[in-house]
Amino acid sequence: MIKNIILERISKKKFSEYGDIIIQNSKPDMIINQGFCKRYHDQANLEIIGGKYGISIFHAKIRKLPYKFNLLERHPLGSQTFIPLSSDPFLVIVAADDNGTPINPKAFITSPNMGINYKRNVWHGVLTPLHGTGIFAVVDRIGNDKNLEEYHFKNKFLVIER
Amino acid sequence: MIKNIILERISKKKFSEYGDIIIQNSKPDMIINQGFCKRYHDQANLEIIGGKYGISIFHAKIRKLPYKFNLLERHPLGSQTFIPLSSDPFLVIVAADDNGTPINPKAFITSPNMGINYKRNVWHGVLTPLHGTGIFAVVDRIGNDKNLEEYHFKNKFLVIER
Repeated sequence: MIKNIILERISKKKFSEYGDIIIQNSKPDMIINQGFCKRYHDQANLEIIGGKYGISIFHAKIRKLPYKFNLLERHPLGSQTFIPLSSDPFLVIVAADDNGTPINPKAFITSPNMGINYKRNVWHGVLTPLHGTGIFAVVDRIGNDKNLEEYHFKNKFLVIER
Repeated sequence: MIKNIILERISKKKFSEYGDIIIQNSKPDMIINQGFCKRYHDQANLEIIGGKYGISIFHAKIRKLPYKFNLLERHPLGSQTFIPLSSDPFLVIVAADDNGTPINPKAFITSPNMGINYKRNVWHGVLTPLHGTGIFAVVDRIGNDKNLEEYHFKNKFLVIER
C-alpha cells in the first residue's frame, strides 16, 4: 500500500518543529560593508555533541515528483544544514518521532534562495533536489562516532503535488 | 595613485595561505543515500575563539570589473565561510599581513559552484559578487565581542582582468 503525502510550501512556522529555514527575511539585521551588503543574522540553531563543525559538499541526483520513498534518517549527534549552490527550490521530507519510530511524515518545497537546517535527531529524507545541479554545501558534525540512524517503512509514501 | 591587481583564477594551492575552497573534488569521499549522493567531506578549516557558530544570509550588491577598493577587513576571533546560493563565480580579495598591516593584496575569481572559507584573522575584501543574485550563506562566529578590524589603504587598488 502506498500513502500519498501532499507537498506543502515551506514556512518558518510550519518547519519550526523540525528545524530552521535560512533565507533573507523582510528586514536585514545589519547593513555592512559600507552600505553594500545586508546581513540577516544567525538563522540556524546549530548543535553538535562532541566532534567538530565542518562543511562538506553533497552532490545529489535530481529527483522527480511524484517522489516515492520508504527511508528516513536522523543524526543523534548533531544538526545538519543544507545550502544549495543554486537558487533552486528543493524537496524536504521530515517526520515527528514516536519512541524511535518516525511518524506523520511531511513534504515541503523550499523557496528560491533558501537553505534549511534540521535539528539534531529530527527524522528527515535523503537529499532530494528537483532541479539544477544538485550541489549543496552541508554544515554538520564531523567525527567518527555513529551519527546515522535509518528507518525503513514497510509501506512506501508518495509525495504528490496538490 | 592607483595600483592594478590582475585577477587570477582561484586554486586550492594558490588560496591555501588565506583559507579553503569548498567544491566538488575529483573523487567523492563517500557515496551516501543509497547511491544517490556523493559526499566531499570536511573541506573547510573552521575556527572560532569563544562565541558560537552560526549561519547568516548576506545579500550584497553586484560589482563590476574593473573593481576599485581601498578597504580590507579581518576577523580576529573566527574563520568566515561564504557559500553562494547560486552557481556564479565571485570576486575574492585577500592580503598577507605584516604586523597588523595588509600587504600584497591578491584578487581571485572563484569557479562555478564553489564556496570559500577565510582563515581566522586573514585580511580580505568585502563581499563582491559579480553576477546573479548576490545572496550568500555565511558561516561565522556569532558573539558580541569586537570581531572586525578594518584597514583603509591611502592609495586605491584596481582589480583588472588580464
